[in-house]
Formats: sequence, C-alpha cells, structure tokens
Amino acid sequence: MILTLSCPDRPGIVARVSTLLFEHGANIVDAQQFDDGETGRFFMRVVFTPGPGGAEGVRPGLEALAADLAMDWTLRDPKARRRVMILASQTDHCLADLIWRWRQGELPMDISAVVSNHPEASFPHTDLKGIAFHHLPVSPETKADQEARLSELIDATGTDLVILARYMQILSEDMAGRLAGRCINIHHSFLPGFKGARPYHQAHARGVKVIGATAHFVTPDLDEGPIIEQDVERISHRDQPKDLVRKGRDIERRVLARAVRWVLEDRVLLNGRKTVVFTD
Amino acid sequence: MILTLSCPDRPGIVARVSTLLFEHGANIVDAQQFDDGETGRFFMRVVFTPGPGGAEGVRPGLEALAADLAMDWTLRDPKARRRVMILASQTDHCLADLIWRWRQGELPMDISAVVSNHPEASFPHTDLKGIAFHHLPVSPETKADQEARLSELIDATGTDLVILARYMQILSEDMAGRLAGRCINIHHSFLPGFKGARPYHQAHARGVKVIGATAHFVTPDLDEGPIIEQDVERISHRDQPKDLVRKGRDIERRVLARAVRWVLEDRVLLNGRKTVVFTD
Amino acid sequence: MILTLSCPDRPGIVARVSTLLFEHGANIVDAQQFDDGETGRFFMRVVFTPGPGGAEGVRPGLEALAADLAMDWTLRDPKARRRVMILASQTDHCLADLIWRWRQGELPMDISAVVSNHPEASFPHTDLKGIAFHHLPVSPETKADQEARLSELIDATGTDLVILARYMQILSEDMAGRLAGRCINIHHSFLPGFKGARPYHQAHARGVKVIGATAHFVTPDLDEGPIIEQDVERISHRDQPKDLVRKGRDIERRVLARAVRWVLEDRVLLNGRKTVVFTD
Amino acid sequence: MILTLSCPDRPGIVARVSTLLFEHGANIVDAQQFDDGETGRFFMRVVFTPGPGGAEGVRPGLEALAADLAMDWTLRDPKARRRVMILASQTDHCLADLIWRWRQGELPMDISAVVSNHPEASFPHTDLKGIAFHHLPVSPETKADQEARLSELIDATGTDLVILARYMQILSEDMAGRLAGRCINIHHSFLPGFKGARPYHQAHARGVKVIGATAHFVTPDLDEGPIIEQDVERISHRDQPKDLVRKGRDIERRVLARAVRWVLEDRVLLNGRKTVVFTD
Repeated sequence: MILTLSCPDRPGIVARVSTLLFEHGANIVDAQQFDDGETGRFFMRVVFTPGPGGAEGVRPGLEALAADLAMDWTLRDPKARRRVMILASQTDHCLADLIWRWRQGELPMDISAVVSNHPEASFPHTDLKGIAFHHLPVSPETKADQEARLSELIDATGTDLVILARYMQILSEDMAGRLAGRCINIHHSFLPGFKGARPYHQAHARGVKVIGATAHFVTPDLDEGPIIEQDVERISHRDQPKDLVRKGRDIERRVLARAVRWVLEDRVLLNGRKTVVFTD
Repeated sequence: MILTLSCPDRPGIVARVSTLLFEHGANIVDAQQFDDGETGRFFMRVVFTPGPGGAEGVRPGLEALAADLAMDWTLRDPKARRRVMILASQTDHCLADLIWRWRQGELPMDISAVVSNHPEASFPHTDLKGIAFHHLPVSPETKADQEARLSELIDATGTDLVILARYMQILSEDMAGRLAGRCINIHHSFLPGFKGARPYHQAHARGVKVIGATAHFVTPDLDEGPIIEQDVERISHRDQPKDLVRKGRDIERRVLARAVRWVLEDRVLLNGRKTVVFTD
Repeated sequence: MILTLSCPDRPGIVARVSTLLFEHGANIVDAQQFDDGETGRFFMRVVFTPGPGGAEGVRPGLEALAADLAMDWTLRDPKARRRVMILASQTDHCLADLIWRWRQGELPMDISAVVSNHPEASFPHTDLKGIAFHHLPVSPETKADQEARLSELIDATGTDLVILARYMQILSEDMAGRLAGRCINIHHSFLPGFKGARPYHQAHARGVKVIGATAHFVTPDLDEGPIIEQDVERISHRDQPKDLVRKGRDIERRVLARAVRWVLEDRVLLNGRKTVVFTD
Repeated sequence: MILTLSCPDRPGIVARVSTLLFEHGANIVDAQQFDDGETGRFFMRVVFTPGPGGAEGVRPGLEALAADLAMDWTLRDPKARRRVMILASQTDHCLADLIWRWRQGELPMDISAVVSNHPEASFPHTDLKGIAFHHLPVSPETKADQEARLSELIDATGTDLVILARYMQILSEDMAGRLAGRCINIHHSFLPGFKGARPYHQAHARGVKVIGATAHFVTPDLDEGPIIEQDVERISHRDQPKDLVRKGRDIERRVLARAVRWVLEDRVLLNGRKTVVFTD
C-alpha cells in the first residue's frame, strides 16, 4: 500500500502515522518525508506491507488523524491501477513511447483511451491494438463542443489521469481547471525559458547551448503549472531547428515517461505552485 | 540532531524510533529510510530538533532500542564538527578545493591537519593560513615508519575522518584496516574501469568517450572500497591524456567534495561493500 | 556527397583535397579533421555539393591523390542509403527503437532484414510491417550452421551494416572477423567496466552510482572493439537490478541510435582500436 | 598559429585558404568550419605550424584574400597571451577559480589586473600574489566617474579581454558598447530563464528541477548577449535558495572557465547575436 499525506508541520506526525501502521501489523518498507520550512507544510510518502488484517483497517485511524492534523491524504493499493487517457495530435513520439513503456511493464496503469484531434489512421506505426481510440476533431468554432465531449469521455471511461502527449490544443481555462492536479503536459522547452509556440525555433534563434523539456501539471495559466520533471541535452551551433526537434523528441519522451511513472507511483505531491517529488 | 541507524528489518522500527523522539519533545524535520530487500537490513537517517529537555535525553532510550533491535546507531549534534585530516601529494587541486569550500562554509568540519609527503613549500598557491601542516616524507624503506607517525598524528590530533585528496601513496593493508569506514579516497577513474595507476592514460588508450572519478571508502583491497559518489564528463577523440587530466581535475574536485559533505552530514551509511547515501 | 579519408599526416593534404573539389566546381558545406599526434595519422570528413559536372568527376583525382598520399577514402552520395540488418534476441527495446526512429526519418538507411534466433511471434508489439524477418534459431550444436546461414543472408540481401541490437549470441571469431568494421554492438555497461554477462547485476553488486551503455564495433575480442559512443545515468542504492535494467533500456536505446546514425552519416572513422567521431 | 575567419559563403574558400598556407610551408594540425545555411555565412578556425619562413609571411596573402572574399579574420600566435582583466564584487568563487586555473596552466592568459568595487581586504583567501589589484568603489552618484576610471585602466593596462566574474554592477550602455565582443559575463541562471536579479530565488519560487548558469558576451541589452556556454545541475524540492547558491557556485565556475578558455583559444566566433564555438 502507498500512503501519501501532507499537513501543517507539528511534532509527532511521523510517530502517530507509524504507530498507527504498526498497531495494524503493517511493515513500512519505504518512507520519505519533507518539511517545507518556508510554508510550514509537511509531506510524507509511506509504502507498507499490510498486516494480516489487510490494509483497509487503517482507514478509520487515518481519518481520525486527518481530522486532528488537518491532513490531506491518499491510500492506494498499487495493484489498483489508475486509468489513464492519452491525448495526442500529429506527432506521435510521446504517445508511441508511453504505449511502448506500458507494454514493457514500466508504467503501472490501464489505458482508458487514446484521444486525438486527428484520425486513427494518422498513427499507422503506433501499436494501438486493444486500446480504445477516439477521434475528436476540433476547430476554433467547435472547441467548446469538443471539450464537452472530451469531458464526457473522461467521466465515462473512469479516467483518473489525463496525459497531454504533445496534444497541440490549448485547453480552455474551464477544462484546465476541471482537470487540476490530474492532467500532465509535456512542454518542449526548459521552462520558464521559451514559453508558448515553437520553442525549438525560439531556442535556435536565441543561440542557447542546451535545450530541454518540462513535464508539468496543467493549470489555467499556460506553461505555468507545477513542474514535475525537467531534463536537458547539449546542442551546438551546428544544430538547425530540425535537429533540435529530433534531439528534443528524446528529451520529451524520457521526461514525460519519468513524470508519468512518478505520478502513477504516488511520488508527486502538490505544494502550492510547486511539487514535492519523492524520487526512486 | 542527526540520528542514523541500521538493523535487521522488522515491523515497528519507525514507530518505535519516532515515538521515542516524540516522547522527548523532539520534532522530526527530515527523515529518509531504506529497506534493503536483498540483505533484509534497514537503514534510517533522522534529523530532529530536540525538545526543551535537550537531545541527550533520548540516548538511554536509543540504547535500549539498539539492544532490542540489534541496531547500530549514531547520534550527533551537527554543531559538533568532525575533525578532518587531508592528505595530499604533488597535485593540489583536490586539497585546494576542499580548503576553499571549507572557507566558504560548504563543509561543516574542522581541519585537524594537512599532511603531505612533500614539503609545505610545494603548495605555494593553496591558502594554508591557520592550518597545521605536517611534512611526512616517505620512501619504500621508510613507509612503515611514516605510517606509524601518521597513525600517531591521527590520534594526537583527534582526527575523525581522513581524506586522501590525490595522496599518491598506497596505504598498507594494516593502515587501511585501521582507518576502515573513516578514510575517503578519490580515484581518478570511473571504477571499476581503469583501476590502478595512470587511469587517464588507460582511458585514452582504450578510446572511451566518457571519463569519470570515484570517491570511495578506503579498504585493504585497493580500488575496491564501498563507493560513495561518482560522476563523469564527455570526452572526444581530440582529447589527449593531458586534456583528460585537466577535465578530470574538475570531476575529481566535485565528486570528492560531494562525498565529503555527505559523510560530514551523516548521509552515508555502510551496507557491506556498498553504501546507502541519503542525498539532499 | 560525403568524403572521408585518412592517411599519414604531411603538409598540404587539406589544400590538395579542397583544391581538387574546387576545380570540379564543388562547394564544401562542412568539413572536420583530426590530426592524431600520437600516431601521425590524419583524418578528414568533407561534405560537399557537387558542381554542374556531378560528383563522379572527382573520383579519378581522388584515386591519384590516394596513391600519392597512401590514403584510405570513401566517397558516398548520402541519398544512396546503406542496407542495414538488425539482429535481436528476446528483448526488443533496441530493435523497436531503431525501427521507430527509421520510420520517423532519423536514420538514413534501408533495412535489409531483421534476424532473430527467436520467431517473429516473439515481437508482437514491434511494427515489422514491410520488413523481411528471418528466424535463425541457434543452439551450441548448430551455431556454425546458423552463422553460415547468417553469412549467406548478409550477402544475399546486400547488407552493408549489421547491428546487434541486444542479440544475445556471441559471434564466432571467424564471423566477427568477417564483419570487422561493419558490425555494431550495444553492450549494456559502461565499458571497460562490467564486461561479460549480466552487467547490471554486476553493477548492482559493486554498488556503483552511475550506470552506462557502450556502442562499439564488433571484433573477435569480446567487449574490446573500438568504442563509438557511451552514455550514463545516475542510480542510487534504492535501485534494484530490475530498476537498472529499466533505466538501462533508455541508455542503450539512445547510445545505439546515436552510434548507428553517426556511422550511417560517415562520421565514424576507425583509428586502430579507437574511433574518430566527427559528431554533429 | 591560430587563424579564424568568417565571410559570405562561396565555393573555394577552403581551397584558397589551405593552398595559401601550403604555399608558405605551413602544416594544418586542426581545422573546423561551419557554414550557416540560414545566413549564408561561413566560419573557420585553422591551427597550423608555420613553415620555415615563419607565420608572418602569410599575412599579405590573407589580406588579399580578405579583400576579395569580404572576410573578417584574425591570426594569432598562441604564445602571445591575451591580457585579461577580471572584475569581481563580494563573492569571489569565480575570481578565485579563474586565478587557480590560471596558476595551474589551464588558461593561457596574462592577468592585466583584478578590479573590484570592494577593497582587496575583502578577498583574504584568494591568492592575489603578483597580481595588480585596483579598488574602484562605486555608488549611483559616482558610477559615471568609476566607469571612466575603469576605461582608462583597461587602456592603460593593455587589456584585451574583460571578465565579469560575478561583478554585481550593471555596465552602462556606453561601457557595454565599448567592450562589445571582448567582455564576458557569467549569469547565474540558465538564460533566457530567470533574467535579472536573484535568479536562484526566482528558480526556487518557480519550482524548477534543474538550475544552470550562462556565460555570454556583454551587450548593452542586459542578459541578452551572445551565449558562449551553458551548463546545468539537477535540484530537488529539498533545495533551499542557499543550496541553489551553493550548487550554482560549481556550475558558474565551470561554465565561466570553459567560456574563457575557449575565447582565449580563439574558438568562439560571433555570428550576429549568436556564437559559433569550435570546441575541443
């Protein structure tokens, strides 16, 4: 079982949580915590093997603790896989990579659906066998309608997490708000550098020597959501925008895959406009 | 206060430790743990602010716990700085860097002495002001004597930790054994590649595309001690051995500095021939 | 056109080569050179746009130059794609990645065949559409026969380059010799560390803090061939062998892909047991 | 000798340059070139050993070539070291590191002076032995005067290159213009992210997962000059601004040192608001 929690810091939190688990026969196999001295907020992630009575027995105790400590918490059986919807547009490198990793067993999730504003035939080389595909075309005129259908689909498929895998449509403020905390985007720049469109062309024009990619939670403020993961690669004056696009595909794939895996493993906790990431 | 502990894994360790701290009014501000599934050994590092009664009150409880759990533990006030002896030979880049970082306040330690088999005049550009310097020349004939004097000096200066900062003498098996767990060496290769002498020349001859450096605890087995930290840098066919030496100086300096800081902050626990490093 | 050459160093080589090209109306768009001071050998790669008379006109001049300078050289139209055979065993991450990059247009090659000692059904999620697949099972008894059939296939398919994409069979000395300079292997360790079998398990047992992968030309000496490219990733004490395998897949894929692309673009020249790599 | 040149691209440049050198008995030991397809500009760096007549004999030929090809060029004997002035304020890590590398022989330069708006006594641990130190205090009222004195000092000391080694004063537009192309600054962020003041605090507030530093030529547009080199380091949610400052010192030191070395070795050519860097 994976327990995550956050609350205002005060003495005794670890003692109370670990004693509660111990009293129910659980064995803690991993635990990480963080005390944000700036905001006075405490964050913790605990992985434990339940005792003979099972894990559910700890819930009432956690509820009591939560009430007492003003604590946000989640308790999840890692075997209960999250349902994940992947949205993509024309470029499929992030989509194909997520599906490949999922088939390899790297990403503990079920894919509730793949959704694109382009038809399934646009992805001839991505192995979509056994995955529900929905084509939701969009134009400026139909954007509101399309988002309404997308919302319905998210609900109907029991989707827990939405991944914008180079989905080249900007979500409306309303939609971004609805999905707050459960929608991850990959931006193809090292934020906060090169926000907005065509970041590789911006990077080439500015003459930077390193490019990057950023996986972040989507918020109504474009490119301003809490950052989950970033990575970079060196470039040189020889690299044309098309080379940056090629090198960037590799960075985007690994940054997004790491961010998704960490979220699926409950390693990412929101801390205002930032994240706490208990990496492995 | 910083508490580190390791013991055979069993349910309740975290609960007992954190409850003990809570009962003495302590507030845990950081904690990391690791459960080595392979060996069944549990490792933990806890940073806490003591309660009004001070930190010493927890010692008896920890002693009882240690007896019960077969637990190795240390409890240290970070303000009680360790006494560190630095050994160097002709090249002074690691020595100078450690002293510079110490003066910057990056390394929470007192320098008990700098020792070299070369005279102080060999280090005209290293700021040794206010630091005790000992010249202990050595030759194959005098090695046993020199090590005896070194041993006395370690004892006489109350040295807790010995750093071989590119000290180009191999410690005798006896000496290495005596210093087990409290002597750090920087090896100028990415171990286990290029053990032994002149690793940059070996790397050049083999045509590798990346070079590295390794900070490890010294053991009687040369270049086989538990690794604390490693880092690397890219090279190309253009790099001659002298370029590798130059690039290597940068890698060695940062790898050694990280390893030393982590050891000084009680972040490094021995796990057989490996280490557990609770990084920041 | 891409011209590569190497010869004993002497004054005037660049002048003679560039003048020859100029006299045939060619425009040099990229050139890199390297003078190995150690061996006295000179290496050069020139990309040029041919003049109105085409590129073939420079061949006689190059032949004369080669005779005079004892020069090895190749002249290739990048539009004449090399024919590449990919060999794989059970794990398909390198195979799938190469095919994906080829479909993306990252790898300028034709795939002459995919060959495995396992049947095509072992690769259900790799898109082999339109690619010839050959199942060549092998056992200790049939190894010589299997290699004979592989040799025939290499000849029959006009294969220029063979890629061992985690092909878990060791080529015989004879076969390795036959393919010298045109067979690339990906080894899942940071050579020369952890040669031989199960390098990730070796790395875990040694407790290193960084793992890597190495792409190299195959030679009869196992894991000793000229290194083309290496890369690494940080690991921690938390990483079990299975985590190293997962992280390693990412390193192997990008290291092999870079090495293959560089070879396909005539960027890799052999220099004894080392390589000169004119990177982009 | 090191020859650098840039001019509009056209066929025959390499042939003419290399033939000229050959005719004077020179042997090319290294050459790199770059053809900027976007702007149609050609860049080249050639290292050659002069013939028996010396290197000066090629100057008239180069002048003729320059007139014909509209070519900017420099020809420099690497033994004629550039005179470099280093400016620093309170933090001395970049200053101390440059001086240390210079004493190690890593930076082929003479130090014309160290200048600070703080007195020499502010740098007790930097080895300024044998280096001219000038204290030029500054306040908003005296800024114009101070810059005038600085200008005089640059001229009087025959300074070729000015390094702002964490000099915390913004040069006036006039001063920045005067030093165009021969003044390098180290900015403690990964530009274009976090321009302006206190970038590490900005980075902490934004919650990025990687921080960096940028060495660039100074231009009247603050933080917008041509970038020479950048590098980065990973951080985590645990890192407070003071930790970023500490980690940043390491990045700043190595980025600035690389940029300075490359400029001293004539590896950096200006290309509009970007640079061409012929790295080693």
